[in-house]
Amino acid sequence: MLQLYFFPMACSLASRIALTEAGIEANYHLAHIWTKKVVDDGSDFHDVSPKGAVPVLVLENGERLTESAAVLQYIADLKPEAGLAPQSGDPDRYRLQEWLSFIGAEIHKAFLFPTFWYKDDGSLAKPRARIAQTLSVPAAHLADREFLVGNRFTVADAHLTWALLLLRPAGVDIAQWQSLRSYLERMQARPAVKEAIATEMALRKTVAA
Amino acid sequence: MLQLYFFPMACSLASRIALTEAGIEANYHLAHIWTKKVVDDGSDFHDVSPKGAVPVLVLENGERLTESAAVLQYIADLKPEAGLAPQSGDPDRYRLQEWLSFIGAEIHKAFLFPTFWYKDDGSLAKPRARIAQTLSVPAAHLADREFLVGNRFTVADAHLTWALLLLRPAGVDIAQWQSLRSYLERMQARPAVKEAIATEMALRKTVAA
Repeated sequence: MLQLYFFPMACSLASRIALTEAGIEANYHLAHIWTKKVVDDGSDFHDVSPKGAVPVLVLENGERLTESAAVLQYIADLKPEAGLAPQSGDPDRYRLQEWLSFIGAEIHKAFLFPTFWYKDDGSLAKPRARIAQTLSVPAAHLADREFLVGNRFTVADAHLTWALLLLRPAGVDIAQWQSLRSYLERMQARPAVKEAIATEMALRKTVAA
Repeated sequence: MLQLYFFPMACSLASRIALTEAGIEANYHLAHIWTKKVVDDGSDFHDVSPKGAVPVLVLENGERLTESAAVLQYIADLKPEAGLAPQSGDPDRYRLQEWLSFIGAEIHKAFLFPTFWYKDDGSLAKPRARIAQTLSVPAAHLADREFLVGNRFTVADAHLTWALLLLRPAGVDIAQWQSLRSYLERMQARPAVKEAIATEMALRKTVAA
């Protein structure tokens, strides 16, 4: 069975959403990304992945895959009938990769990461000054679309849903972009998304910051 | 014919390397990423891409693809016989995606981007404190490998080659990681890589910072 190392409400939530949407069972291991301990057994998370970051997906053959963009595409391709990614050869597959890159680099790494990890105003003024321009890109795209890619839910939506959820604790009110607010409401109304978020919100309370 | 909007020695260099390695002809348009002007005709680069960032690859059908991770995979798939990416279905394809994400997020967006764009010590202390740990990941991986993925040059190598080249002007001497130094020397010895870099270094001198 697949195993996913995650931290509640960290970007690994997108992988849990993808697994839940696809109906793929997995063992979930909580890895404390600040103490770098695996909560199951207190072992060093660096032994699972030298990066010390989630998600880490342990494949059936024991290999470990990291980075949301790769893990999400791997999960989607495990169950093509779930339609969580356009098939390879479909031009929309590159659109999926484009969104995964944009969300991972521009929203997560350029803004959410420094906000939650650096936590001082000197580091944060410039990332904060850029975030509205960054968010205007998906806001414009979603003004007349239900989903990021094509006309169905994909792992890019799992990724963006996570990022939008984290913007509020990061101090950004997405209500100023009507299209993003409605999109997030639609995504949160999906049973699999709701279930994944509820699971992680409950676990989040058990973990000291 | 494909068209690539680039800025000399910006991350679009990886796309030029990929096109050159694949022997794919393209029209190259210099987009000044600071002034947001297309140098050809002085037009607003935001009209090409609202992101105002390179690379932008204009496909044969006129659509515009952005984000290195997507553009590089698109280029690789145009000419499978060049072997610039494992075929879809090959487990190494996810390793390629993993490296593209890591390089784009952890080296580029978390370090090179703030270094070149934010330019003040308050913003940079924390990204700078993290970069050695970040670089230890590819350094360890390349200790006994010639290339990032499998046993041949892929677009992930094009991406990392660009990132390593930029570390020096960003104030990081990669000589402290012997494996990264030898890797970069090997990559720079490839005729296509050498040609792409020489072209952009010459163009870089024509563009005011």
